[in-house]
Amino acid sequence: MTPARPLEHLRRFGYLGPRGTFTQMALEAWTGAAGSEQLPYGSVDAALDALRGGAVDAAMVPIENSVEGGVSATLDALATGEPLVVVGEVLVPITFVLCARPGTSLGAVRAVGTHSHAWAQVRRWVGAHLPAAAYVPTLSTAAAAAALAGDGEVVFDAAVCAPGAATGSGLEVLARDIGDSSGAVTRFVLVARPGTLPAPTGADKTTVVLYQQEDHPGGLLELLEQFASRGVNLTRLESRPVGGQMGRYCFSIDLEGHVNDARVGETLMGLKRVCADVRFLGSYARADGVPAVARQGTTDADFEAAAAWLARLRA
Amino acid sequence: MTPARPLEHLRRFGYLGPRGTFTQMALEAWTGAAGSEQLPYGSVDAALDALRGGAVDAAMVPIENSVEGGVSATLDALATGEPLVVVGEVLVPITFVLCARPGTSLGAVRAVGTHSHAWAQVRRWVGAHLPAAAYVPTLSTAAAAAALAGDGEVVFDAAVCAPGAATGSGLEVLARDIGDSSGAVTRFVLVARPGTLPAPTGADKTTVVLYQQEDHPGGLLELLEQFASRGVNLTRLESRPVGGQMGRYCFSIDLEGHVNDARVGETLMGLKRVCADVRFLGSYARADGVPAVARQGTTDADFEAAAAWLARLRA
Amino acid sequence: MTPARPLEHLRRFGYLGPRGTFTQMALEAWTGAAGSEQLPYGSVDAALDALRGGAVDAAMVPIENSVEGGVSATLDALATGEPLVVVGEVLVPITFVLCARPGTSLGAVRAVGTHSHAWAQVRRWVGAHLPAAAYVPTLSTAAAAAALAGDGEVVFDAAVCAPGAATGSGLEVLARDIGDSSGAVTRFVLVARPGTLPAPTGADKTTVVLYQQEDHPGGLLELLEQFASRGVNLTRLESRPVGGQMGRYCFSIDLEGHVNDARVGETLMGLKRVCADVRFLGSYARADGVPAVARQGTTDADFEAAAAWLARLRA
Amino acid sequence: MTPARPLEHLRRFGYLGPRGTFTQMALEAWTGAAGSEQLPYGSVDAALDALRGGAVDAAMVPIENSVEGGVSATLDALATGEPLVVVGEVLVPITFVLCARPGTSLGAVRAVGTHSHAWAQVRRWVGAHLPAAAYVPTLSTAAAAAALAGDGEVVFDAAVCAPGAATGSGLEVLARDIGDSSGAVTRFVLVARPGTLPAPTGADKTTVVLYQQEDHPGGLLELLEQFASRGVNLTRLESRPVGGQMGRYCFSIDLEGHVNDARVGETLMGLKRVCADVRFLGSYARADGVPAVARQGTTDADFEAAAAWLARLRA
Repeated sequence: MTPARPLEHLRRFGYLGPRGTFTQMALEAWTGAAGSEQLPYGSVDAALDALRGGAVDAAMVPIENSVEGGVSATLDALATGEPLVVVGEVLVPITFVLCARPGTSLGAVRAVGTHSHAWAQVRRWVGAHLPAAAYVPTLSTAAAAAALAGDGEVVFDAAVCAPGAATGSGLEVLARDIGDSSGAVTRFVLVARPGTLPAPTGADKTTVVLYQQEDHPGGLLELLEQFASRGVNLTRLESRPVGGQMGRYCFSIDLEGHVNDARVGETLMGLKRVCADVRFLGSYARADGVPAVARQGTTDADFEAAAAWLARLRA
Repeated sequence: MTPARPLEHLRRFGYLGPRGTFTQMALEAWTGAAGSEQLPYGSVDAALDALRGGAVDAAMVPIENSVEGGVSATLDALATGEPLVVVGEVLVPITFVLCARPGTSLGAVRAVGTHSHAWAQVRRWVGAHLPAAAYVPTLSTAAAAAALAGDGEVVFDAAVCAPGAATGSGLEVLARDIGDSSGAVTRFVLVARPGTLPAPTGADKTTVVLYQQEDHPGGLLELLEQFASRGVNLTRLESRPVGGQMGRYCFSIDLEGHVNDARVGETLMGLKRVCADVRFLGSYARADGVPAVARQGTTDADFEAAAAWLARLRA
Repeated sequence: MTPARPLEHLRRFGYLGPRGTFTQMALEAWTGAAGSEQLPYGSVDAALDALRGGAVDAAMVPIENSVEGGVSATLDALATGEPLVVVGEVLVPITFVLCARPGTSLGAVRAVGTHSHAWAQVRRWVGAHLPAAAYVPTLSTAAAAAALAGDGEVVFDAAVCAPGAATGSGLEVLARDIGDSSGAVTRFVLVARPGTLPAPTGADKTTVVLYQQEDHPGGLLELLEQFASRGVNLTRLESRPVGGQMGRYCFSIDLEGHVNDARVGETLMGLKRVCADVRFLGSYARADGVPAVARQGTTDADFEAAAAWLARLRA
Repeated sequence: MTPARPLEHLRRFGYLGPRGTFTQMALEAWTGAAGSEQLPYGSVDAALDALRGGAVDAAMVPIENSVEGGVSATLDALATGEPLVVVGEVLVPITFVLCARPGTSLGAVRAVGTHSHAWAQVRRWVGAHLPAAAYVPTLSTAAAAAALAGDGEVVFDAAVCAPGAATGSGLEVLARDIGDSSGAVTRFVLVARPGTLPAPTGADKTTVVLYQQEDHPGGLLELLEQFASRGVNLTRLESRPVGGQMGRYCFSIDLEGHVNDARVGETLMGLKRVCADVRFLGSYARADGVPAVARQGTTDADFEAAAAWLARLRA
């Protein structure tokens, strides 16, 4: 869960708060963040705006399968506006607890507060154990726990949150591991301003957004030929509406390898030539550490040998 | 916004409620729903469960760029569980109003209630006009308006919602058209149980989910060759994690044309053969009515001529 | 070297003569030709014209890497004019002998007669053993031997021909196996009029000629997608000028499988739809008997299962 | 028919002889050959061996649709052995005359001498005007005319040859323009030793031979993706058996553009990486002078802009 090479000049970190969210867990899992300043923000947009404005050096935000929302917001915020780059990723196993004020029994719970995405992931457990409970949306899972732990009046009796949000809060855990899907993981990315490029580790990813010249049958196929002809694998591909309107799309893509790898560099140049625009969103160490396996003929050495051969032909 | 052929046996409709959401606006725009029973549900899952269970004949849910959440929920609910099919789509222009109890001035607003996705779409306006206002999440935009319009105590002074949710509620509209992106549109789909297949209109879409045999470079390219070799265009493509885990993906795809079109049928059969699984999620009239333009050699007549030619060769 | 199922109604056979050529060897290797009438013709065109006119039921002609010429002639004669189909193929190992009238020693040979293609294949041996010998072109390798074996005056002392052409001719063999390339094989095809379609054997080939709609970058790629999307492998591909002019091309192609195989049939229909024209030149048992290995999802059973699935979707 | 830039250091030229063949016509059409030494050779192999040995600086040989044979010989001689490169091409319109010794009437012709490939191209005319004439193969069309023009005994009364071969020979032309296909053109190439690379003209071709790593369905498709992803068009493609055996193939390819063009260079490097071997056979001005039309994003300027962009990303 740590990058091969800490990005040491990053000292102040923002994240999608409040304290106790899964996003903060992701930030704590990031080696370079230990002992650093960590500032919670109320939304992905707010965290990225703080980064763009210089209030923080990096921001941890959810990008895939989140329980705190923000996934579409993150993709769209990175695809537009002042450029930012991803410099790392963290995978956080998702487990939920149900917690309440001391003395509350499970049978006494009539309303449950949590983020709507978390609620969607515990519905089966809730249906079985609290079939009559009402749902109250909160700004985040941690906010639900914090409200219960505070002195104020709250309209729910129990909160669904990360285990860490209950710890030390004075709340009691009524049930653990109540998520409907065991093994669920959420992916977070650490974002920085352009100019920070982590060194290649041999197990890297690169994220880009592609804007097509025009839409036509086979158009996406032509884009994918740019990857296939250099042996570059995709790990995520999403078409997303451009400008809030239906009918025009861009492609948000994660690919295996680092911009400094020859095959990735040539692929990016190929995309740059055939696309209306290519937005580079960073190269960074994979959280799972799985090393890239270059197909035959696609290592840096293969590219160098081919370039030397071409130079001889042209001489 | 109406299908070429009403689906007349659908009489009871569920939707992502409560009344006054953009989803209900989508349902009202659906010709076949006029005068029918319309039942609000608290979540996409609940609406689709009611459909699966027979409580309603069809359910209207958001599927792309929603202000009420539910997009990932819809994609995932359709991709798994008891099969359902899309039988129509509706596009709803998204405009927001800020409303409050009579007598509340804009300057007096200290907290605003709305769904978190709607909040994300009015942040610029709020930043300019209500920079100090707190945000309170609600279950939906309509729920925020309904809470204000009711007698109970609420922790916010104003609601962001659809214009229709304010109308007739007794609330006053403080500002109109406060969305940050003019021209925004959200796409909703009408879902039914299998067995309902709208007739082709010449301007149709088909939705499928593809599960790959195994992941390898060029794997997606091979899938797309199935489309390209029959001249079938994609209008949406998203890779989505399978089973809540990272690393395995399926592809959620919208394509131009109807399952009864020869080129679409052959494409689906090709995908069925090379994929681990193909989940058919329906063919239905496009909301924008844009007729499909078949590339040379891909009309039904072209397929029939080729089949007749092959039959002669084999005779 | 024999088809799995003799084509028993073929009784009169033409071939590129005269007697004693490698082409006749190919015909003799064809099971169905044993004991049949066998008529030599002076050229590939003449043999195919006789077939078209009904004088013979089938004609054996060289199609790849021949020593008797005729390869381009065969490809072009099949690609144009009254349709014909290939119903079988034969591979003949090519070995050459040098023969002369009795009493002629190797040292006495001053001129050598043979077909120009055969001459090209023994040049190294001739350069080493008969460096001063002149070359005299003849209509075929067998014609060279026949001329020497006859009573007439000939302007050469020795002939290069197939071993069988020397046997029983009264000529003496001065050297055996004088070909420069050991292991050389020539491929011959048995051609018939349309209406004859050998039964599938599981180890079949199909030959087609494709005419593109228009020439553009990626045009050939689009044609090949028709093969790739159904898992059909090519074993020969040649672009050939159309109509004797440079700049327009057709593609002469051999593919693995039989027109009755589902994957081949669908590929042919796909080509028929996207090409300006497709000329079907027959399906026939492979001479080498190598069975086709269908890729995952491309067996007839896979096609049937996919068709049944589609029928259910459309019901 | 002349290259944009004469290759002035080439002073001694070999060609597929004898004098009076279409190949010599091609050489005479080559600007740089005017007034140079021109040496006829008895075969394509002999001409190329003389070139490899240094006896000549360049050799003109037929490569496509020839009337003098040698096409396969040329392709194979270039694909194997000591490397050579094509430095130019010439297109020669093919027209045939029938000529005879003075006093011979058309009705008196009983046997016709010519090269077998030329014979194939006048068969329709001969069938109509000399239905009873026998055919006598000769080493070349010019050799047939020369034999008739000489004093010796010949076994034919008339020769089919190029118009120029009859001129000044003392023979009478009995009929002109007797080819069955009007507008026929043969393509010849000028071959030199490696180290000669004509400057780009904007209307260039490049010839290569590709050897695949292994044969598998889609293998050729992968090779063609290397071309398509850089917008490079093919003008000729032939699979050819490797090593005289069936079952293993290489691909002989002409592509549009010059090795010095960025898109061609990157394509060649891509092929070098994924193929078992790539044999570069030269870049040279197109005989037809048709300028290359670069697809969007494939000019040298596009490649430079993409490279500059990548350098900024990596900085």
